[in-house]
Amino acid sequence: MAYNLLKGKKGIIFGALNEMSIAWKVAEKCLEEGAQIVLTNTPLSIRMGKVEAFAEKNHIPLIPADATNVEDLNHLLKESMRHFGGKIDFILHSVAMSLNVRKKRSYDDLDYDFLQKTLDISAISFHKVLQCAKKLDAINEWGSVVALSYVAAQRTMYEYNDMADAKAMLESIARSFGYIYGREKKIRINTISQSPTMTTAGSGIKGFDSLVDFADRMSPLGNATAEECAGYCICLFSDLTRKITMQNLYHDGGFSSMGMSYRAMHQYNKSFDTEKD
Amino acid sequence: MAYNLLKGKKGIIFGALNEMSIAWKVAEKCLEEGAQIVLTNTPLSIRMGKVEAFAEKNHIPLIPADATNVEDLNHLLKESMRHFGGKIDFILHSVAMSLNVRKKRSYDDLDYDFLQKTLDISAISFHKVLQCAKKLDAINEWGSVVALSYVAAQRTMYEYNDMADAKAMLESIARSFGYIYGREKKIRINTISQSPTMTTAGSGIKGFDSLVDFADRMSPLGNATAEECAGYCICLFSDLTRKITMQNLYHDGGFSSMGMSYRAMHQYNKSFDTEKD
Amino acid sequence: MAYNLLKGKKGIIFGALNEMSIAWKVAEKCLEEGAQIVLTNTPLSIRMGKVEAFAEKNHIPLIPADATNVEDLNHLLKESMRHFGGKIDFILHSVAMSLNVRKKRSYDDLDYDFLQKTLDISAISFHKVLQCAKKLDAINEWGSVVALSYVAAQRTMYEYNDMADAKAMLESIARSFGYIYGREKKIRINTISQSPTMTTAGSGIKGFDSLVDFADRMSPLGNATAEECAGYCICLFSDLTRKITMQNLYHDGGFSSMGMSYRAMHQYNKSFDTEKD
Amino acid sequence: MAYNLLKGKKGIIFGALNEMSIAWKVAEKCLEEGAQIVLTNTPLSIRMGKVEAFAEKNHIPLIPADATNVEDLNHLLKESMRHFGGKIDFILHSVAMSLNVRKKRSYDDLDYDFLQKTLDISAISFHKVLQCAKKLDAINEWGSVVALSYVAAQRTMYEYNDMADAKAMLESIARSFGYIYGREKKIRINTISQSPTMTTAGSGIKGFDSLVDFADRMSPLGNATAEECAGYCICLFSDLTRKITMQNLYHDGGFSSMGMSYRAMHQYNKSFDTEKD
Repeated sequence: MAYNLLKGKKGIIFGALNEMSIAWKVAEKCLEEGAQIVLTNTPLSIRMGKVEAFAEKNHIPLIPADATNVEDLNHLLKESMRHFGGKIDFILHSVAMSLNVRKKRSYDDLDYDFLQKTLDISAISFHKVLQCAKKLDAINEWGSVVALSYVAAQRTMYEYNDMADAKAMLESIARSFGYIYGREKKIRINTISQSPTMTTAGSGIKGFDSLVDFADRMSPLGNATAEECAGYCICLFSDLTRKITMQNLYHDGGFSSMGMSYRAMHQYNKSFDTEKD
Repeated sequence: MAYNLLKGKKGIIFGALNEMSIAWKVAEKCLEEGAQIVLTNTPLSIRMGKVEAFAEKNHIPLIPADATNVEDLNHLLKESMRHFGGKIDFILHSVAMSLNVRKKRSYDDLDYDFLQKTLDISAISFHKVLQCAKKLDAINEWGSVVALSYVAAQRTMYEYNDMADAKAMLESIARSFGYIYGREKKIRINTISQSPTMTTAGSGIKGFDSLVDFADRMSPLGNATAEECAGYCICLFSDLTRKITMQNLYHDGGFSSMGMSYRAMHQYNKSFDTEKD
Repeated sequence: MAYNLLKGKKGIIFGALNEMSIAWKVAEKCLEEGAQIVLTNTPLSIRMGKVEAFAEKNHIPLIPADATNVEDLNHLLKESMRHFGGKIDFILHSVAMSLNVRKKRSYDDLDYDFLQKTLDISAISFHKVLQCAKKLDAINEWGSVVALSYVAAQRTMYEYNDMADAKAMLESIARSFGYIYGREKKIRINTISQSPTMTTAGSGIKGFDSLVDFADRMSPLGNATAEECAGYCICLFSDLTRKITMQNLYHDGGFSSMGMSYRAMHQYNKSFDTEKD
Repeated sequence: MAYNLLKGKKGIIFGALNEMSIAWKVAEKCLEEGAQIVLTNTPLSIRMGKVEAFAEKNHIPLIPADATNVEDLNHLLKESMRHFGGKIDFILHSVAMSLNVRKKRSYDDLDYDFLQKTLDISAISFHKVLQCAKKLDAINEWGSVVALSYVAAQRTMYEYNDMADAKAMLESIARSFGYIYGREKKIRINTISQSPTMTTAGSGIKGFDSLVDFADRMSPLGNATAEECAGYCICLFSDLTRKITMQNLYHDGGFSSMGMSYRAMHQYNKSFDTEKD
């Protein structure tokens, strides 16, 4: 069901890789809701994923850009404005990567060059997008910017590694820049803290399946899906949420407000049955 | 602009008094978005306010109920279901009152009977609504319940008095009941923590004007209005936010994430100019 | 090992029942650290517990008081000041009880008279202690008041029931009163949010053993014991923490900052082995 | 007054510059409380400050180290262990610097090389200290590590700039590493979020005086001083707080739990008197 919530709005979506990606679902939902969009990702992700086909099928520009590269970002923003014939209204930032995770460096054995890359890709890139956009005056008043985060920014998840610190910084950037962009241009900046989601990125983390199962049993409504996340993004891009800014918004079926559920405890308790055998 | 976001949905709105009320604005917006609604308030508030005319004009049932009275609530819920010909989809709880505030009892000189009333009206009533609804199985799966709160639940505001404790409890009830109603019926329960708003209730608090001015200068987007709050409520009642539950959601132009803004500091600093004179 | 941290200080300890009680351990530690104390509890708890013997053995006054009764509290405070020959320096509030929990009323079937009692005993009693103390000017400048709380105030624990709402309110009272008592008398008020602890009260909660096991495996340092909690209380009563106020302080081996530990996940995963059998 | 709280304990203090420094006050208090310490700072800070004289006077080793340099840190840790004849028990990390602040680059015009330096000095250095210490097994079981933070990590303060993001990351590192170091070596890691303090570093921030005034009037107990902060550090280094870990602990006279105080509002309101003139 569509509502035309984004009719006339124009946006840029970072980070769609394939149909599992949250950014992919957001892109689809934006189109359904009447928005015009531009897609972007790194050249490597474009080659490895399926976003090119998606863009072609929907007649959407796909503009390659490394989100850590200021020149690429300026090019992307200018090209988008040229394409739209004006400023943009919303941005989704769904960009994260940790070489320490990939290379299985544990958190007490970090490679500091990798850490710098983690921060640059997963957090500072968000600042760069915002700083470039502000310098180019690329976003309309009452525009909306959303970045995707995870509860590990507040609560340590084993194996989530340096990505936790990057997400904490990402959420801080949303606040710090939200203040400035809000007071000067009425633009709102928020992060959505999403349930663990079985995307290509998520599935790379060790023990991720178990975590997804546990989170699901802890959450009274179960884990939120990528598609449901897209629904929330649409609300945040729409004119119905103009005064929400600098917030980290949990979209997780209730997980973040749970200490222990009956369902998770019940499952946990079964573990002791085995031991007695 | 309307989107038909609530087409086919049915809801109950507690607490509309007059056109300044947030609940009033929510009621209007629900109608615009295609919902059917029932209005309710105490007999006294109905007499003192303008909700009766509103209901008549819009051909909406107005069912008097004291939200602290379980029988009244059962009657309200049953009548609403009869009127709708089925279960309801959303509820707005906008009910709060403190006799300690009204009677100017300071927080270190509380009347404990008044305190009990504050809690019963401003917090426990929310539990009663939910418990009655659950026992009557009055809410459809994936229904949505929202109560209005204020940042004083987390951060002390002078003169906000025992209402701060009531709001803290209200938010806790949203979590506690959100867990149970979520796991059993997929119903989500959230609170919106709204900017200080110049309603009839708000304007009763001593020094409220100054606080509104300060909050406005602290918030990069300025204070959120009652009408803007209604927009957020609509999103939360819609199918686009099904996995958000047990959350306290700040709708405040950024206030809750600010430590100090340039604009507020600048104004504050002027105070010292006077002193030098 | 003792440090004389509380030399010359005088305090009142609420809620010691038997040697499992946190309040009992705090009382012992206060004595070790050079404080003079008065013990108090309800007449019923005094009969059922062992605090009378403790008081006798240590030559400490035991003054019965129902913490929900303002007259009792005034009597307690006056008698304590008479005994000490002056004002008091610290108070521990370790008082909580829920008839809904005891009578196994589930959270969606609360008895509202019981709820009122839960709030009165577990939260409002704290306000009453503070209000009585302030009216009698019973606490020295830079005095320190601590109440015991639990993480369920922020995150729902199944079976913790209406006690969660009471703890949320208790923590709010610490903030609200902390502001007033701080600005006027330089008295600090905090809550300690303690690990689940195998006290007589704790052991009454259904499934509490499992929760304690889970919390222990989630917490990198394991659950905090009652005795360790006493150590923290001593710090908070001492002159080394004069500027800490209005805080909820987690004393839980790290639990509150954990999303998932390896140890808890490992145990959880064993549960699926059984199922495969 | 001293209590011998740290008798027999050995620690390293990072970041003492002169007698205004919090680290300086912590060093003094550690000595008073019976600890042995090693001081460290960068060669430049040693030249510019007065720590050399302090070290000489107290017969304490002063070992120069750049906290962003792993080799320097390894040298420092090894030399300290040699000096102490064994492992260390506590560490204070009081290290922060932003070239963006110094060079007056506003937050929407950050120099990204400066940002990287801000993060490396103010946040990653903390990880490096911990990782080096863990690899060298340099800290005794139940050791305690504290880093100094500021409320800007949660709430935006104008002009605090990229340091806010660095502090958010610093607090995240305390959680992430606190989990691992806790489970493996029983070592606790916390941050203290201190009132704005008139140190040499603090006084470099534009408009800092006004902020200090405002914070003081907002805080019921007034701003916490550097010396009072040292008292809290002593508690956290002692054996009385063994189960506190992964926490950000506000030491701020209540500021963090305030929304608005009478005193701050009263001062703010004076600003309008001028305007009327």
